[in-house]
Amino acid sequence: MLTSLPTPGFSFEIVATLGHARAGILHTPHGDIPTPVFMPVGTAGTVKAMTPDELRAPPLDARIILGNTYHLYLRPGLEVIEAAGGLHGFAAWDRAILTDSGGYQVFSLAAINQIDDDGVTFRSHIDGSEHRLTPEVSMQIQRVLGSDIAMCFDECPPGDADAQVHERALARTTAWAKRCRIAPRAPGQALFGIVQGGIDTARRLRHMAEILPLDFDGHALGGLAVGENLADTYRILDEVAHLLPAERPRYLMGVGTPADLERGILAGIDMFDCVMPTRNARNGYLFTSGERVNIPNAANRLDMGPVDPTCPCATCKTHSRAYLRHLYMAKEILYSRLATLHNLTFYARHVARLRERIVAEGTRA
Amino acid sequence: MLTSLPTPGFSFEIVATLGHARAGILHTPHGDIPTPVFMPVGTAGTVKAMTPDELRAPPLDARIILGNTYHLYLRPGLEVIEAAGGLHGFAAWDRAILTDSGGYQVFSLAAINQIDDDGVTFRSHIDGSEHRLTPEVSMQIQRVLGSDIAMCFDECPPGDADAQVHERALARTTAWAKRCRIAPRAPGQALFGIVQGGIDTARRLRHMAEILPLDFDGHALGGLAVGENLADTYRILDEVAHLLPAERPRYLMGVGTPADLERGILAGIDMFDCVMPTRNARNGYLFTSGERVNIPNAANRLDMGPVDPTCPCATCKTHSRAYLRHLYMAKEILYSRLATLHNLTFYARHVARLRERIVAEGTRA
Repeated sequence: MLTSLPTPGFSFEIVATLGHARAGILHTPHGDIPTPVFMPVGTAGTVKAMTPDELRAPPLDARIILGNTYHLYLRPGLEVIEAAGGLHGFAAWDRAILTDSGGYQVFSLAAINQIDDDGVTFRSHIDGSEHRLTPEVSMQIQRVLGSDIAMCFDECPPGDADAQVHERALARTTAWAKRCRIAPRAPGQALFGIVQGGIDTARRLRHMAEILPLDFDGHALGGLAVGENLADTYRILDEVAHLLPAERPRYLMGVGTPADLERGILAGIDMFDCVMPTRNARNGYLFTSGERVNIPNAANRLDMGPVDPTCPCATCKTHSRAYLRHLYMAKEILYSRLATLHNLTFYARHVARLRERIVAEGTRA
Repeated sequence: MLTSLPTPGFSFEIVATLGHARAGILHTPHGDIPTPVFMPVGTAGTVKAMTPDELRAPPLDARIILGNTYHLYLRPGLEVIEAAGGLHGFAAWDRAILTDSGGYQVFSLAAINQIDDDGVTFRSHIDGSEHRLTPEVSMQIQRVLGSDIAMCFDECPPGDADAQVHERALARTTAWAKRCRIAPRAPGQALFGIVQGGIDTARRLRHMAEILPLDFDGHALGGLAVGENLADTYRILDEVAHLLPAERPRYLMGVGTPADLERGILAGIDMFDCVMPTRNARNGYLFTSGERVNIPNAANRLDMGPVDPTCPCATCKTHSRAYLRHLYMAKEILYSRLATLHNLTFYARHVARLRERIVAEGTRA
């Protein structure tokens, strides 16, 4: 079942369903993306330690990466990316890009000076310089970045914020979504709306009712995995995800562990992003089909086997745990490369296997 | 003209000569090495930031890399490398490896506790642990590393040392060379002798007369580019290099700039190693066919052209100066990768061009 999305050039095809889970293909101007998909995070115009060639090469075969509006706006700045004709050209990435709105980073990294109904004034975490983000500014930045999928600028209250804070954030996020919806976009740039509401089901549903009529190309669940209990995350997923429009892609922002991805997929989510595979890799944690490997462990010192014998990545096919441990202990750059390639391959295969299961065991759509 | 070297499996073929300069091929059990050759430095079992695949891929096409005995002995330690069957297996490098003796690092990095006629006692620069290197220990370590070419353990006095220090170091280096010459080696492992003597021509020639009769597979000039004037370096090269046996490879240790390599080649040198291309890359300095590029310079901020339009490396074919500058400023790992690949490619092509000139303009041997 192929559905055209509101933005020309985009369509979403559901291939099979298994309960709430869906296997699909998101068609974009920069290529087709089999879903469910995990999107590697390319914070500052680079998926840390990886070249575009490595990201594209099978078995990793990344079809879409994420760029951070907040980081790219501060450094290198829009003038540079505009001179390169956008983020695709600047980063030499010819497949799809999703950009976040900057909202999450402003609320988590920057020093907030003022939040009002119009936007947020903050100081850069890099040099302390003062900046202001509004829905219009976020959309203008994303327009210059030229991502395939832009995200609405939203307010992200902490998971433990009180009801009043949540309500005000929700109202603002809805008002800001409306302003983003009518803001100018780059040619061929889709826009996703974000449903907030924390772990309160009623609040989530109420916010969904405000966001869905705005006719976005896809819908994201924001404000999960921001400090709440995992049981609450999963409960909200189970209660809410499948209620997002079935014919449009559903994106769970900033999540998560391999188990979280499986739960999200079973709940009906199509897209994920998280720094976990890349950041954990650099910190010495490697995902495997068995136990997670903590590479500095002495047990790896003389282990001439691969990180994961079932993994087809170049790291596992070429290098031993002992070699990786040595590189890690010696703080060698090559360690971060090899570890990142492995963890991203693990995530890609994990999601691909779940997709195969949906296709094999599910109902053709 | 093909000459078998003393160690079985090694031969040296001189293809053409131009004055003192020679174009040749060093045949080793791990492949053929066109000379003159620049050997990338793989200090700790990795050419920093590079995978073996990248080092092998044309146009870089590295045929031999260097490993540092001192670093590898301290970390990961011999037990680990022995368990991997040697450095080739540990680092997944199937081409040739030359290991230094550890002498230079002991004298430049470690805290020396004692130098005597038998060897050197020192403290590790990593954890302060005490160790002792002798000619026999250095050879034993290199035997475990299993390099294709081992180097004699030598004493390296500073460039400004007085005559007495130089004389004692020379006498020890000769005595140690004799002990290295008869020490057990790995199967198919060649051994090069090292001529010391600082910038005093007579002392150099005298030491050469002590080292040459020991019938090494090749000969190195040590103790140059250790703080002396460049004019003195070049003078010694011109006076001494061509007097090393013509039918065996000649290696100038730890040198140098592209101009130094050209001077060395014209003086009759066949092999070079230096951290300059790799270290400079990480520090923001990129070699080009024109002016050297200091990547953080503001001039690169909006420069969407490559580092060097004449360079065929993947960095220059894919990425702009502006992107590299951004990665450098943001301290992204990808910067070091792209910059190292470029500088090593520059060095490889620089030496390859000089070789082509010798073949084109010189006399067939």
